[in-house]
Amino acid sequence: MDTDTDIEEGINDQRNTDRDYQQPLAAPLIEASELAKWSFYRAIIAEFVSTGLFLYITVLTVIGYKSQNDSTKNPGYCGGVGLLGIAWAFGGMIFVLVYNTAGISGGHLNPAVTVALLLARKVTVPRAVMYILAQCSGATCGCWLVKAFEKTYYMVYGGGANELQQGYGRLTGLGAEIIGTFILVYTVLSTTDPKRNARDSHVPVLAPLPIGFAVFMVHLATIPITGTGINPARSFGAAVMYNEKKIWDDHWLFWAGPMIGAVGAEFYYEHILRAHLTLYRDHHHITRR
Amino acid sequence: MDTDTDIEEGINDQRNTDRDYQQPLAAPLIEASELAKWSFYRAIIAEFVSTGLFLYITVLTVIGYKSQNDSTKNPGYCGGVGLLGIAWAFGGMIFVLVYNTAGISGGHLNPAVTVALLLARKVTVPRAVMYILAQCSGATCGCWLVKAFEKTYYMVYGGGANELQQGYGRLTGLGAEIIGTFILVYTVLSTTDPKRNARDSHVPVLAPLPIGFAVFMVHLATIPITGTGINPARSFGAAVMYNEKKIWDDHWLFWAGPMIGAVGAEFYYEHILRAHLTLYRDHHHITRR
Amino acid sequence: MDTDTDIEEGINDQRNTDRDYQQPLAAPLIEASELAKWSFYRAIIAEFVSTGLFLYITVLTVIGYKSQNDSTKNPGYCGGVGLLGIAWAFGGMIFVLVYNTAGISGGHLNPAVTVALLLARKVTVPRAVMYILAQCSGATCGCWLVKAFEKTYYMVYGGGANELQQGYGRLTGLGAEIIGTFILVYTVLSTTDPKRNARDSHVPVLAPLPIGFAVFMVHLATIPITGTGINPARSFGAAVMYNEKKIWDDHWLFWAGPMIGAVGAEFYYEHILRAHLTLYRDHHHITRR
Amino acid sequence: MDTDTDIEEGINDQRNTDRDYQQPLAAPLIEASELAKWSFYRAIIAEFVSTGLFLYITVLTVIGYKSQNDSTKNPGYCGGVGLLGIAWAFGGMIFVLVYNTAGISGGHLNPAVTVALLLARKVTVPRAVMYILAQCSGATCGCWLVKAFEKTYYMVYGGGANELQQGYGRLTGLGAEIIGTFILVYTVLSTTDPKRNARDSHVPVLAPLPIGFAVFMVHLATIPITGTGINPARSFGAAVMYNEKKIWDDHWLFWAGPMIGAVGAEFYYEHILRAHLTLYRDHHHITRR
Repeated sequence: MDTDTDIEEGINDQRNTDRDYQQPLAAPLIEASELAKWSFYRAIIAEFVSTGLFLYITVLTVIGYKSQNDSTKNPGYCGGVGLLGIAWAFGGMIFVLVYNTAGISGGHLNPAVTVALLLARKVTVPRAVMYILAQCSGATCGCWLVKAFEKTYYMVYGGGANELQQGYGRLTGLGAEIIGTFILVYTVLSTTDPKRNARDSHVPVLAPLPIGFAVFMVHLATIPITGTGINPARSFGAAVMYNEKKIWDDHWLFWAGPMIGAVGAEFYYEHILRAHLTLYRDHHHITRR
Repeated sequence: MDTDTDIEEGINDQRNTDRDYQQPLAAPLIEASELAKWSFYRAIIAEFVSTGLFLYITVLTVIGYKSQNDSTKNPGYCGGVGLLGIAWAFGGMIFVLVYNTAGISGGHLNPAVTVALLLARKVTVPRAVMYILAQCSGATCGCWLVKAFEKTYYMVYGGGANELQQGYGRLTGLGAEIIGTFILVYTVLSTTDPKRNARDSHVPVLAPLPIGFAVFMVHLATIPITGTGINPARSFGAAVMYNEKKIWDDHWLFWAGPMIGAVGAEFYYEHILRAHLTLYRDHHHITRR
Repeated sequence: MDTDTDIEEGINDQRNTDRDYQQPLAAPLIEASELAKWSFYRAIIAEFVSTGLFLYITVLTVIGYKSQNDSTKNPGYCGGVGLLGIAWAFGGMIFVLVYNTAGISGGHLNPAVTVALLLARKVTVPRAVMYILAQCSGATCGCWLVKAFEKTYYMVYGGGANELQQGYGRLTGLGAEIIGTFILVYTVLSTTDPKRNARDSHVPVLAPLPIGFAVFMVHLATIPITGTGINPARSFGAAVMYNEKKIWDDHWLFWAGPMIGAVGAEFYYEHILRAHLTLYRDHHHITRR
Repeated sequence: MDTDTDIEEGINDQRNTDRDYQQPLAAPLIEASELAKWSFYRAIIAEFVSTGLFLYITVLTVIGYKSQNDSTKNPGYCGGVGLLGIAWAFGGMIFVLVYNTAGISGGHLNPAVTVALLLARKVTVPRAVMYILAQCSGATCGCWLVKAFEKTYYMVYGGGANELQQGYGRLTGLGAEIIGTFILVYTVLSTTDPKRNARDSHVPVLAPLPIGFAVFMVHLATIPITGTGINPARSFGAAVMYNEKKIWDDHWLFWAGPMIGAVGAEFYYEHILRAHLTLYRDHHHITRR
């Protein structure tokens, strides 16, 4: 396999004016001017509010599910939302909220996504830091609302917090979080592909649907293992409001796993699937300085 | 943060002929000419019929669900539609009916949505009033149909009416209705964003899907608290046909909550997320007089 | 309300060259030339095959559901597809098959849809007749396949045939079929609206999704009443293969209901929602002769 | 019916410069140059990774389902994902992964799809062979991950392997696999139709949704018969990791059925539904040599 040819191909791809798309330039690491714009603060507010709404709906669904399936309360009752309903709550809310906030903040709602897009050079460092703070505090507020609404049940039914389920080791839990986040971030990167955007100009509108489905799918598979995190803000907010020792003991899993998965997906996407474009972009970036 | 710059930005956005979208002018509060057009009456008929079909399908699904899970009738039976099926019925019907009526009336089907779009100056006052009357009477007719079809079960199984569930206080119920409607109306406003319409010319077609999902999501989470209203016409129609004291005692919640949520979403959307455009529009409106 | 103005409006709509759409001319009642084209026969084959696949998947799902919920066989078992799974099977297959055959035959797969599109003057009489024959024989073949595959269970579990459920009168069953088909046909007519096609050129691709959801919704609500027909070919094929007296006694309901619903939806759509265009088309049709 | 006219029609379709689409030329059987391109190897990697992720999520969901419904472990528990959740896992993952890899490898993830697209002359022989090897080894790795994560449950709960269920004969199993794959491949061929692509330029983006739904539907119907294969790589990977005699005895069904179904769908699509274009293409192909 001729790698040199591939690099050439990559560079020519860009120079050829017949190409129907434009590889966007990498975002700078720090851009002072964005701090003076309302759009920057508006994006942070949107990340805070949307992550809050995400946790509010999903954790409320989880508590409802546990109450419906409490055999001491409802023996023989069969009509709850089920684990399928919980998986839909997480996936469906991501679909709705990414759709609603994509035009404002990019619709990350997840520190693992923000880190992946920072590595992909689509956001600056200050923006990434502020987003992650907004996501974590938003998630905490969302869980606080559920706790306030579900006084009776919140603590009894686990508060929607992520923990390693009985019968699974730490490595399994870490693996499940890594692969789950890999699937999510790989989908996010696919939907923001500039090549795809050019070919199908309406992608921004459709992108939230596969992203939401990716979250739905991972929940179907890994709720029995870790409760499914794949979003450190979601795990953090629920841990703060539930605040029990076992939850905090496992908590590192729900940061380490998603971050490793996000970095892996970014590497896979950029250095395997879109290899020559990376080479080109780096080349271009050097020239530009 | 430089607010002046933002205002400038907003105004320039509009004047710059390179912009690919046009901020539509605010609808006047009253426009006599629309009263002389068939399209006005057609829209009212469409709101009436569609809200009726909405209640018909959803309340029928609720009654069926309760019958399937009646342990005295079907002990040990497990194959009903479940709460997940009910949540799909509400969300899916909104998707289908908004899709079908968006081109005729805008596809509101909900007084909270109509009020939000009145505040956003997308409909006139007479249109908003007529829509709300059509929605409430349509919903009542839809529930009447279910009552006629389900003679045996309608009153036994609660008639699909919204009420505060046992164990939840009034403030919790109000809060659940406010936040649920906030999510719905925020989604509606996002889908009708002119900026988005310009960028992705096919949004009007796709918009009903996230709107339907928003309704689906809120039902998954809050059926255990209030039965989920987030639509005063839906709550009103079911209350009229079921007509029991407890339902009417709680009924104010299902108007106050959605209206507060709708106003909140409109404020959040227009004054936080799209701040400078509002400033511009008001400026323009004054100039125009 | 000035009706004359509306008619004027309709006519001007068509003549104004700035309009972005073209109202298609009515299909002639009989067009000899189409009988000489392969595309005519291909369309009939596609209707036959797709209706067969529709019944194959859906009735197989129904038989599986009844087997899963047979308390003598699986006492206490809770993991079947549920009524929600059945509703998805009907709605999801319509989505897939309409998507696949829309470009070949229009993707009717349902005599009620064919009759509505004949009334809307979108297909000729010979085409409508051949489609209905193809749909009914295709549905019968699909059910025959299920009967062959499910030797043990087919007759025990009712063969997926539609019948009035216990506790519901004939008028209720008829009403449920009428309104259910009204929702389906109204959705079909909305998706084929020429105005919508012009505005959003990709509608043909998206249209199958709301159509499938309409079918999904109606099943959620009315399976407990009639098993949900809303498609005479579906009811006919299942009745032929199951072939018991009670089924044939109720069978007229599943032709009368859908046909009334289809005619009603066509009337509502064309004479209420799109009134002036109808007036124009008739006018034009006369002129043309 | 005048077949000559149809052929003429087909040829004229292509020559007429007013046509809005271009029938692509058939891919050559072997193209040496593609072996020198990174895009070829990247596609193989993408098929390997995506098929691995597909089996990982779906088999994990199956094992979780069986554990949730184990009446010795969870008597009376009713809140699992159900067969409906399993069907969603298979269909939803195909939607997400075809969306993610369509632009890299075409998103086959299934030897039956690869064979159909080879027959349709859309891929070369070396590419088809490499894809099938990548799919089978990817699927095996995905199942290996599940086995590693689910040490306790993997062998107890059947490892997600396909086998003929009790009460069904071999011919029934073969028939179910043939028809199920027919539905899937027919949908794949419909979404890649060049005529449709021209008319609706965004189809590549939407195509994965009906493909995913086709998989979802077939699972709803045939899990009770064969566990649903319709993908030899999926059946092969699960068989390798589960590795019991009964599974290998039935294994031929899960290659023969899908391959017959794929060839049948390709024949139906190309020689019935798109007859004249095939004639034209063959004509053109001969001329070109």
